[in-house]
Amino acid sequence: MNEPQRVEILLVEDNPNDIRLTLHAFKRQNIINQIHVVRDGAEALDFLFGTGDYAGRQLEHGPRVILLDLKLPLVDGLEVLRRIKHDPRTRSIPVVVLTSSAEERDVVSSYELGVNSYIVKPVDFEQFTEVARSLGMYWLLLNYSPQS
Amino acid sequence: MNEPQRVEILLVEDNPNDIRLTLHAFKRQNIINQIHVVRDGAEALDFLFGTGDYAGRQLEHGPRVILLDLKLPLVDGLEVLRRIKHDPRTRSIPVVVLTSSAEERDVVSSYELGVNSYIVKPVDFEQFTEVARSLGMYWLLLNYSPQS
Repeated sequence: MNEPQRVEILLVEDNPNDIRLTLHAFKRQNIINQIHVVRDGAEALDFLFGTGDYAGRQLEHGPRVILLDLKLPLVDGLEVLRRIKHDPRTRSIPVVVLTSSAEERDVVSSYELGVNSYIVKPVDFEQFTEVARSLGMYWLLLNYSPQS
Repeated sequence: MNEPQRVEILLVEDNPNDIRLTLHAFKRQNIINQIHVVRDGAEALDFLFGTGDYAGRQLEHGPRVILLDLKLPLVDGLEVLRRIKHDPRTRSIPVVVLTSSAEERDVVSSYELGVNSYIVKPVDFEQFTEVARSLGMYWLLLNYSPQS
C-alpha cells in the first residue's frame, strides 16, 4: 500500500524555536510522524486547498486539527482562519490558535471567525511542553471530527 | 460584594446518571460550585438569553464553556447549538457536544453548526470520569475565551 500516511496535525508556525519545542513535545507522544509543518500563511492555504506547491494533493482527509499561529509571514493567521472557516471543504477541521498574544482583540476576532479553541503559548519551556502534550491528547485522542 | 459567583460551566444534560457522574468528576477538581445544570434545551436557551425563569439574569459574563448533550427534551441539542452560534451574544462561548452518539451524521451536523469540540461519552465509569476531568482542565485552565 503506497497510500501516504495521513497528516494528523498541521502546524502553522514560523518561529523555529516554537516549531522545535512543539515537535519535541509531540515526539514524546509518538505522534511526530503525523505532523506537517508549514512556515507561513500562504503555504498553509496551499496545503489545505491543494494549490501552489501542493497542487494535486488528495484533499479528502484533512488534518484532524490545525495549530495556527497568528503572526505569520505572507498571509496572517486571522486571514488563514477566515479562509478555512468560510470554505465548506475545510470548515469542519478543528482550528486551535496557538499564539503568544493574550490580547482580547485577537481572542475576540478569532472566536468571531469561528476558531475552535484559543491557547496562549507559555513562555516557560516545561509549561510549553505540557501545553503541547495536552493539546495533542485532547484533539487527537478525545475529540471527534468528521471522518476521524 | 454580593456579586453572584460566575457560572464557569453550563451543563445541558437530562440523564440523571450522567449529571451525577459529571458533577462527581468536577468535584475532584474543586469546580463543583461553578457549574450550573439545566435539564432540557428550552431551559438552556432561557439561561443563556435571560428569558423565562431566567428573566433578568445578567448576561455580560456567559459561561466559559457549555457542555451540551444532543438528545434533549423540548428543544434538541443541535437546535440549541444553532441558536447559540447564530446569536452574536453567545457565538463566542465555546460549546462542547458531550453525547453518547458517535454517528457521523451528528458529528458532521455539529461541526457545520459551529461546535467547538465533539466528545463521545465513554460508557465505562472510570473513563467517563477521566474524560470529564480532561474537559474541565482543557476548557477552564488551558483555553482562552473572550473576557476569560
